[in-house]
Amino acid sequence: MSCVTGLLKDVADVGRATAGGYARFAWTTPDLELREWFAAEAAARGLDVVVDRAGNQWAWWGDPDADGPGVVTGSHLDSVPGGGAFDGPLGVASAFCAIDALRAHGVQPSRPLGIVSFSDEEGARFGLACLGSRAVTGTVAAGRLLGLRDDDGETFGDVLAGAGVDLARYGRDDEALARIGVFVELHVEQGRYLADLTGTDEAPVAVASTIWPHGRWRVDLHGEANHAGTTPLAHRHDPMLDLAGVVQDVRAAATSAGALATVAKVAVEPNGVNAIPSRVRAWIDARAPQEGAVRAVLADLAGHTPVEESWTPATVFDPELAARLAAVVGRPRSGDPAPVVGTGAGHDAGILAAAGVPTAMLFVRNPTGASHTPAEHAEDADCEAGVVALTRVLADLLLGEAP
Amino acid sequence: MSCVTGLLKDVADVGRATAGGYARFAWTTPDLELREWFAAEAAARGLDVVVDRAGNQWAWWGDPDADGPGVVTGSHLDSVPGGGAFDGPLGVASAFCAIDALRAHGVQPSRPLGIVSFSDEEGARFGLACLGSRAVTGTVAAGRLLGLRDDDGETFGDVLAGAGVDLARYGRDDEALARIGVFVELHVEQGRYLADLTGTDEAPVAVASTIWPHGRWRVDLHGEANHAGTTPLAHRHDPMLDLAGVVQDVRAAATSAGALATVAKVAVEPNGVNAIPSRVRAWIDARAPQEGAVRAVLADLAGHTPVEESWTPATVFDPELAARLAAVVGRPRSGDPAPVVGTGAGHDAGILAAAGVPTAMLFVRNPTGASHTPAEHAEDADCEAGVVALTRVLADLLLGEAP
Repeated sequence: MSCVTGLLKDVADVGRATAGGYARFAWTTPDLELREWFAAEAAARGLDVVVDRAGNQWAWWGDPDADGPGVVTGSHLDSVPGGGAFDGPLGVASAFCAIDALRAHGVQPSRPLGIVSFSDEEGARFGLACLGSRAVTGTVAAGRLLGLRDDDGETFGDVLAGAGVDLARYGRDDEALARIGVFVELHVEQGRYLADLTGTDEAPVAVASTIWPHGRWRVDLHGEANHAGTTPLAHRHDPMLDLAGVVQDVRAAATSAGALATVAKVAVEPNGVNAIPSRVRAWIDARAPQEGAVRAVLADLAGHTPVEESWTPATVFDPELAARLAAVVGRPRSGDPAPVVGTGAGHDAGILAAAGVPTAMLFVRNPTGASHTPAEHAEDADCEAGVVALTRVLADLLLGEAP
Repeated sequence: MSCVTGLLKDVADVGRATAGGYARFAWTTPDLELREWFAAEAAARGLDVVVDRAGNQWAWWGDPDADGPGVVTGSHLDSVPGGGAFDGPLGVASAFCAIDALRAHGVQPSRPLGIVSFSDEEGARFGLACLGSRAVTGTVAAGRLLGLRDDDGETFGDVLAGAGVDLARYGRDDEALARIGVFVELHVEQGRYLADLTGTDEAPVAVASTIWPHGRWRVDLHGEANHAGTTPLAHRHDPMLDLAGVVQDVRAAATSAGALATVAKVAVEPNGVNAIPSRVRAWIDARAPQEGAVRAVLADLAGHTPVEESWTPATVFDPELAARLAAVVGRPRSGDPAPVVGTGAGHDAGILAAAGVPTAMLFVRNPTGASHTPAEHAEDADCEAGVVALTRVLADLLLGEAP
């Protein structure tokens, strides 16, 4: 079994959801178990583990404060509800395996090498994706983050305090940021770009060019609670009918604007079979290559005003760095540079890039493009190809010119 | 403070829901607390408390096994999610107050008088309304009931066992049924019939004529989980769009059939903002004066097949008994008999009537008709009028000819 397959197998049983896939939400028991796993893997390799002010974990080979800034790689370990095994963990596991490979090849880094596991990338618990990277970069103020609530009504602040995080110091961490000279995140591809390449174009690994502008909005549809068995239809204010309209409007607007937009989360109050709802909340996820197309989706919701819960402008990864990585990674058959592709999925790498860190991403082929589902997959051979690519990239960044 | 207002006040803080109204679901802590309250109120009046094989509570004045069958009144103490303070408890509290009034008037019953609190009338936890009365009458087999699951996946059988109920004896209870000579349930009105009566027609209390045929159906809408930010619209199988269609189809079909039909409960899997759902479940509540209109609603769901979770045919309460009660209750201004009206709401009284028990209902005026909401209400004076009406009815049934 290859290193990366073995590491993924080690955590395969952590946080399985009863309905399939994983439920590894930030600061829950499975997430805490994965944090321990990260620390143990780091310790096994003699790496120094540091937790930054935003609760993200870092493992260092070398001293970034004395000899930095360093080269950093990694990803996240949390999941969406019912998520797959690769989204996040593949990047962290590949990072550990790449260190093993560098050492096996006798590489003596001229700069420190760090592995990061960002906390709460998916935003499944508190509704804000890339929470840990937004916090450490100060992209979102600590005060706003600490007041976020999960579906049980617990504030993020209370949850963090319960996990032993120092709230007084929580937030932007300039010391942690100063240690990052360059960040490379490896991630399973969340589409079929690589899977659809054939012949000499074929490639198991791509380099990211851009992340589309994207965000999350909430729509509160207010109704009047009443008995479903006695209230005449004409006297009803049933917000479920408004939900139906919003779902259809979002799809129609996305189609005409060339955007991706989705209503995938709904909360009905009181959600009883025979009680007309007093309120339905719906969340809209919208993304597009251009911001104008995203805004067009939200402009057309029949009088309902979406509340913006998060917004991430377009991210353009450093084109020079992307070209350098594409040349280092290459395509196995033609020897040409690896493909350089855009994505609609947000990542911690996007947050760091927007905060001014030289940043790049590698994508590993996904046979069906399925993502945020247990059906998400990457073949063992492609995971190994990902580790090889990451190892080459890190060697180049550790030994070559700083980007 | 009147007796009935005082009793309702005693339980006013039991099981309040954070979002407003009550969350008094069967066999949860608030429900168990209400069961203790029932037993204590019975004990305070020297009544003998018996729990039947279906977990319903009975308090007897006199011995129904020796001198029965008796006259029974009562209702239920559980609530829908976010329910009001009157739906259920008003009938139980009025029963205790009616016994006090009978005793204060020196009535010496020639038959035993029982007060019942049926378990899980709303069906909020296990999806089947009138669970306790269906069980005690054998309308639904015990085996099917014990296998029902709540939203946490707990089976009804496990929940009952945890509450100390004997599963081997659970179900139809012929001894309990044999004790009921006649059943009268007092309930807050769930519409505006009484509130809209004016002048000499005015009346605070009505007698029930019928309960419409009604049922609950579940529709499972299957999709394909995938990433909301990367999956092209054309490649999606998003069941939220099917939900939108079902909600609209149900409303349109109900309008054209003259039925009441509602989609008020929805369960989305996995319900993550950026994960296209793998499944959406929707529940349909449908009722109408005629069964054909209910069936018409369910026939027209664009290829989706609803699974019937419960079905209750039309209930016609004993017309002779209803006329007798209407004459006893009367209208305060004209002295005419109380109104006799139908309802779309199901009740344990309907289950008992269908099982062959002579059964009647009294409805107490509700100023707005609001029901299954914290806005549900009955004025103090109308609650007292309800107790007076119930007391007269019980005296007539205890002393007069057996129905």
